[in-house]
Amino acid sequence: MRTTVGWQADSAMTLRRATVPRRDLRPDDLAVRVDYCGVCHSDLHAVREHHGAADPVLVPGHEFTGVVTEVGSDVSGFGVGDSVAVGNIVDSCGACAMCRAGQENFCREFPTLTYGGTDRRDGSTTLGAYSRGYLVRERFAYHLPAGLDPAGAAPLLCAGITVWEPMRALGIGPGSRVAVVGLGGLGHLAVKLSVALGAETVVVSRSRDKAADARRLGAHEFLVSANETEMDAARDSFDVVIDTISVPHDLGPYLRLVALDGTLSQVGYLGPVTVQTTDLLIGRKKLGSGGSGGRPATAALLEFCARHDITADIEVLPSAQVNEALDRLERNDVRYRFVLDLSDLA
Amino acid sequence: MRTTVGWQADSAMTLRRATVPRRDLRPDDLAVRVDYCGVCHSDLHAVREHHGAADPVLVPGHEFTGVVTEVGSDVSGFGVGDSVAVGNIVDSCGACAMCRAGQENFCREFPTLTYGGTDRRDGSTTLGAYSRGYLVRERFAYHLPAGLDPAGAAPLLCAGITVWEPMRALGIGPGSRVAVVGLGGLGHLAVKLSVALGAETVVVSRSRDKAADARRLGAHEFLVSANETEMDAARDSFDVVIDTISVPHDLGPYLRLVALDGTLSQVGYLGPVTVQTTDLLIGRKKLGSGGSGGRPATAALLEFCARHDITADIEVLPSAQVNEALDRLERNDVRYRFVLDLSDLA
Repeated sequence: MRTTVGWQADSAMTLRRATVPRRDLRPDDLAVRVDYCGVCHSDLHAVREHHGAADPVLVPGHEFTGVVTEVGSDVSGFGVGDSVAVGNIVDSCGACAMCRAGQENFCREFPTLTYGGTDRRDGSTTLGAYSRGYLVRERFAYHLPAGLDPAGAAPLLCAGITVWEPMRALGIGPGSRVAVVGLGGLGHLAVKLSVALGAETVVVSRSRDKAADARRLGAHEFLVSANETEMDAARDSFDVVIDTISVPHDLGPYLRLVALDGTLSQVGYLGPVTVQTTDLLIGRKKLGSGGSGGRPATAALLEFCARHDITADIEVLPSAQVNEALDRLERNDVRYRFVLDLSDLA
Repeated sequence: MRTTVGWQADSAMTLRRATVPRRDLRPDDLAVRVDYCGVCHSDLHAVREHHGAADPVLVPGHEFTGVVTEVGSDVSGFGVGDSVAVGNIVDSCGACAMCRAGQENFCREFPTLTYGGTDRRDGSTTLGAYSRGYLVRERFAYHLPAGLDPAGAAPLLCAGITVWEPMRALGIGPGSRVAVVGLGGLGHLAVKLSVALGAETVVVSRSRDKAADARRLGAHEFLVSANETEMDAARDSFDVVIDTISVPHDLGPYLRLVALDGTLSQVGYLGPVTVQTTDLLIGRKKLGSGGSGGRPATAALLEFCARHDITADIEVLPSAQVNEALDRLERNDVRYRFVLDLSDLA
């Protein structure tokens, strides 16, 4: 075993600096020096729901970039010094229909998560990238394209891919009309990607507060969800609605925005949802979802972002301020993603 | 005003013979002698929920065939003696985006229903086709293709079109894998249409009781929903699942049958439904619905059915036995649709 330094949940539902164990290098492993790690809503939930010593050790962090410091004997695609990016999946069965289709995120035996998962070989609980070092199977690391800022690129690996995969699967491109509901970590990347894909892109938000920001991100229009007149006028007009709201909410008003045979993809809230069948029936609309991505789509996203110069809008904080980042995220006080700079860990 | 004879709801939640008023012929009207009318689940609900004199007069019936007996002065597409079919929509605004797209069933101002609707010109409550005569705007009557049995064709106009439209919109054809859940009025037509469209078609039912019937209808396989082993083996394997179950039920087991990027279309139950987002997320699946059809799809369905010799499997009863039909439908004692023969009405 080896060790690194990271941020571990304690009984006060906050994170404290701790020594983090790491496995010895396997033949197909990369050892990665973590430089930047995004702060995801699910990290916040994991920390707030952690019961300290009663629960398995928790080190969050599942969208990160860094540099390869060591490679296993069987590694062929990476060398020491390579810039890499890793997301929220670090292994899968590799044999099921979903894995064979390049959808490791839907692995029938469930993918191994970057933290809070169970390692498929030694059964240990995976510990995340709020730490200076990570060991990852080569297959689940991605080359970070030259020219992409490594801090701004980190959130592409979870927030970015989560909106990218459904948008691609739903065929968004020139001529599409896309509405992005909620302008946060996921939403602001959905806007940038949708615009770059050539779609007419509209942001839907509770108030007009973020209208200028939406325009700066490239959105063509802005709708205030509280304004019934605006919402009525936009009824039945979007081929795809990407709903990034992270709390339970009534889907009715957003389904009414969907065009004939269009789809609302709910990616922000993952609990149970209730819909009126008539909200689907009238206009033959569909409700879908998506989360994370498979290896081919993740690689394609990074390539697309490099070509279109897309990274997340971020606020970088030294990792020692991680608890402040979580508190502010809880209050939605971030535009649009916190990224921890791990270089302050010895 | 003119009159005809029909079957009208009374306070005992049954139907009794009554004189039914009909409007005078309008310039764009056809007067139709109703020969056959299918008995739909929604007729049953309407009768059972009717409170006699306290409610507007109710004459059910919205999938019928008959012969034109008179035409208005502006009618150009039909003549006296023509065989026609009429479904559950008899008018719409004609101006909204949905109407202009040929989706009068989704008319933004709500389509006028064949019974229990509000006539757009005189404001009267429409009375249905459990009667010997019906007055219908030419635009919402369809030529019944020669060779289609008029009794067996009647259910195509509601049960048939309700499964046809989503199946067509979802692109079912050769190479598709389709599961039809529930083998009743809607389900048995979904099987026939799916098979004729060239799709590999599987029936999912609670028990093996209807397995032989499913095969006779053309289904290639049969799955018992209560058998977990069978259901597990079929996981993630259908591009389209047509769910025709008419009562509230857990969608989870049926969503698990849907393939990557596939769709479950719920057409049998129209109340609120609750789904686990993860049942959509894993496999990027979609939940949709549909109901009735627009004019172009209805005409296309009749033409397709004539070409493939498809009608409903029916049990014809004299209309005087309508209450027996409703009672037996309530017990699911019909394979697969009752059709009333209205010739017993003077």
